[in-house]
Amino acid sequence: MPIVKRCIAECIGTFWLVFGGCGSAVLAAAYTADGSNIAESTAFPLGIGLVGVSLAFGLTVMTMAYAIGHISGCHLNPAVSFGLWAAKRFPGSDLLPYIVSQVVGAIVASGLLYLIASGQEGFALVGSNPLATNGFGAHSPGGYNLVSCLIAELVLTFMFLTIILGATDRRAPAGFAPIAIGLGLTLIHLISIPVTNTSVNPARSLGPAIFAGAELFSQVWLFWLAPIVGAVLAGLAYSAVFDESSIGERQVEETI
Amino acid sequence: MPIVKRCIAECIGTFWLVFGGCGSAVLAAAYTADGSNIAESTAFPLGIGLVGVSLAFGLTVMTMAYAIGHISGCHLNPAVSFGLWAAKRFPGSDLLPYIVSQVVGAIVASGLLYLIASGQEGFALVGSNPLATNGFGAHSPGGYNLVSCLIAELVLTFMFLTIILGATDRRAPAGFAPIAIGLGLTLIHLISIPVTNTSVNPARSLGPAIFAGAELFSQVWLFWLAPIVGAVLAGLAYSAVFDESSIGERQVEETI
Amino acid sequence: MPIVKRCIAECIGTFWLVFGGCGSAVLAAAYTADGSNIAESTAFPLGIGLVGVSLAFGLTVMTMAYAIGHISGCHLNPAVSFGLWAAKRFPGSDLLPYIVSQVVGAIVASGLLYLIASGQEGFALVGSNPLATNGFGAHSPGGYNLVSCLIAELVLTFMFLTIILGATDRRAPAGFAPIAIGLGLTLIHLISIPVTNTSVNPARSLGPAIFAGAELFSQVWLFWLAPIVGAVLAGLAYSAVFDESSIGERQVEETI
Amino acid sequence: MPIVKRCIAECIGTFWLVFGGCGSAVLAAAYTADGSNIAESTAFPLGIGLVGVSLAFGLTVMTMAYAIGHISGCHLNPAVSFGLWAAKRFPGSDLLPYIVSQVVGAIVASGLLYLIASGQEGFALVGSNPLATNGFGAHSPGGYNLVSCLIAELVLTFMFLTIILGATDRRAPAGFAPIAIGLGLTLIHLISIPVTNTSVNPARSLGPAIFAGAELFSQVWLFWLAPIVGAVLAGLAYSAVFDESSIGERQVEETI
Repeated sequence: MPIVKRCIAECIGTFWLVFGGCGSAVLAAAYTADGSNIAESTAFPLGIGLVGVSLAFGLTVMTMAYAIGHISGCHLNPAVSFGLWAAKRFPGSDLLPYIVSQVVGAIVASGLLYLIASGQEGFALVGSNPLATNGFGAHSPGGYNLVSCLIAELVLTFMFLTIILGATDRRAPAGFAPIAIGLGLTLIHLISIPVTNTSVNPARSLGPAIFAGAELFSQVWLFWLAPIVGAVLAGLAYSAVFDESSIGERQVEETI
Repeated sequence: MPIVKRCIAECIGTFWLVFGGCGSAVLAAAYTADGSNIAESTAFPLGIGLVGVSLAFGLTVMTMAYAIGHISGCHLNPAVSFGLWAAKRFPGSDLLPYIVSQVVGAIVASGLLYLIASGQEGFALVGSNPLATNGFGAHSPGGYNLVSCLIAELVLTFMFLTIILGATDRRAPAGFAPIAIGLGLTLIHLISIPVTNTSVNPARSLGPAIFAGAELFSQVWLFWLAPIVGAVLAGLAYSAVFDESSIGERQVEETI
Repeated sequence: MPIVKRCIAECIGTFWLVFGGCGSAVLAAAYTADGSNIAESTAFPLGIGLVGVSLAFGLTVMTMAYAIGHISGCHLNPAVSFGLWAAKRFPGSDLLPYIVSQVVGAIVASGLLYLIASGQEGFALVGSNPLATNGFGAHSPGGYNLVSCLIAELVLTFMFLTIILGATDRRAPAGFAPIAIGLGLTLIHLISIPVTNTSVNPARSLGPAIFAGAELFSQVWLFWLAPIVGAVLAGLAYSAVFDESSIGERQVEETI
Repeated sequence: MPIVKRCIAECIGTFWLVFGGCGSAVLAAAYTADGSNIAESTAFPLGIGLVGVSLAFGLTVMTMAYAIGHISGCHLNPAVSFGLWAAKRFPGSDLLPYIVSQVVGAIVASGLLYLIASGQEGFALVGSNPLATNGFGAHSPGGYNLVSCLIAELVLTFMFLTIILGATDRRAPAGFAPIAIGLGLTLIHLISIPVTNTSVNPARSLGPAIFAGAELFSQVWLFWLAPIVGAVLAGLAYSAVFDESSIGERQVEETI
């Protein structure tokens, strides 16, 4: 598959991750039976809450992994591309085009989500995490400090890559990796939305931050640093400890 | 499989989609521990909320895809039939019988749901979206304007067809497409119920609108226009960019 | 596999369906952050609600279908046994031992659940549906009348059997039937808990009713009549319309 | 695979089970839209509740079963190791190294979780089950007495092992066991969090208890006793009743 088509797939897939994941958070998380998103409403809490947002993020990856896994490997995440490279399952020469495609998809998704959300009367970019941006300290949803946020992102991305590397190992049962990886991302969100609003994905963090103002944009560095470091460590660890002595050509292509 | 039997399958399947999806919304979404569906009750919010409704819609498609996928391909949705036709995976001559069958199933389901729901004391067709109808503007659950609703339905159906076309591609792992497609529909509902009550399916929109009064019926056009346009665009795009040079006979039959 | 071992499997499996499904409803549905099950508590609604109960019922069937499907076919439900018999996939001579085993498992589960639940201070059999019993009219959780309850149980069991017969058809992808059937039962609960507390299973209805007093026991007839009629109709319809001309020996054994 | 590498896998996997499962409970269960974890807040109940925690525990096992099942069998639980040994699917000589590895992973996870949680202003180890510890009587979340808690843990671990032994039986469909087992653990949590906060896993109980003070530590004995007894009984029963006359080498290795 030529690199251009694989980059189109990564762009569409990351668009879906950000549009679906952040979209569910912005449009549906705190919805109440009176039609409002106001946290203080006492009407029935119909909104999807953090369970629904966690499910949404995971399902974006699961659906795309079945839809475009055979085209691009469905990374949708610069940290995943770095981690697979560190585990010698992805060529370094493809890192830049993949990451650029992912970032473009994330930015387009955030802009389109902003446009749709602004079609509700009274819409404004308010709260500690407008447009489902990530943050720490004052912009951590639950007010966690920088150290907690850094550790959480680092550990969770390390484990995310461990799941990806293990589930796409040729010794694992074929065809199930999208379920393990997608629901693994759901699990990561179930744990950590109150901490950082959950990133483990630099492109997902950058997209909404571009539209959410300078203060949130100034925190994006953490969500490039911690996930990429965590992913690279996982890639090195998995290949050093668990890899078969030689990884064949077939496996590189199949990596989802 | 003769066209009559395939149409019976499409009719039963679309019946299930509307009965189960809209049924869960009408009967169980805002249920409280005092036995009421009243949004202002302060009893425990037992109801399934938007997470449960999203899950229900997706599971109707997933269960039917395993049950009748081998019979009719399990479209259950005129937009899906149009999108598969645009991608050259479904013959144009079958479009009309499929769509008629889907619409009949949706109408029967809505009528039966109406009958069951009216067996609760005090039942009435009230609120902005009675019988789980779709709507925009004054009939958008969260009050989103026409432009937001149009964009949301168009983009979401485009992505729904991308999932369907990719997950049923012969290069994708076999047997998993119903999971990807069903939970893909769950994801679409997690994002957009507050916007349009989520259609991406003209038959699902038409069914309840027939019983819900002229004002809601007058909005159905949007939910035929946007999903079909989004689906056709996805069919054209996928086949132009990602298709193998030739699509064999086998794949057409297997399309779910 | 000898009939005795298959009956042991059916007994254990139906035990699990009732213990897990009804248990989640009794122990965890309306739990709040102050440790109570009191519907009027204003503490955080931690309980699993109808979404969690629906998921629990479905997962009992899914887990058992993978665990004992290869032993007994994992019916766990007299209506399922009747429906498979009507579709000529299950021998009539096995109906009685299967159903007796299912009923025994359901009764043991209900008794054990009663014992565990009574270990909470202040426990009493109160409310319209103690021990997660099924009911109609005054014992319908949402107050639905007999006609609505009858139609709901009949239609939902018809569709449940359609899912079972389709997903275990040899033309359907192998191995996925437990997912379709288990999550199909989840879907059925998402729709109808407010109507009848959801039966579609005569054994599941009988078990808790034995411990819940004469008034609830006197309503059990509906939950034997409607599900069995719905299941038999589905079995006849599926085999008449969708069956291949001949069903081999292999398929009978594999029916889950 | 050498025992050292299998033990590393068990340690990482049990780390993930405790970090993800207990982490979701501590960080996200009772989160509200005002950023607090205070049960009395009337802001929108965004938190994941017991449904989310149940899902999280199950997904830790499902993701790891796909990621490291081919390395260590993915027990992550001393009771599972004992149960598989009783069923003659796991060599007794590996019991000690596996259990030590599991306990180490659980303790490291609990310490790291404590560190992250303490990064929120106002954090303190309070309530009846700090750090998601297990307990009975005064430390049962819903106030269930010792007998109820003992029976619940015993029965639930018995059924958990039945699911594991059945789903990894060579007669069961290949590749699906992680779904059955992971979502089986989700089901067990849906039933029993209000009773014991759900253990069925001695390592998961020991980890947080070490950091939560003497009173909670003094209750850990129950969560070693009941799960191990329940698991061993299940192992003996399954192999006596349902095993094929001879279990081959292949199956021992594949046990997940």
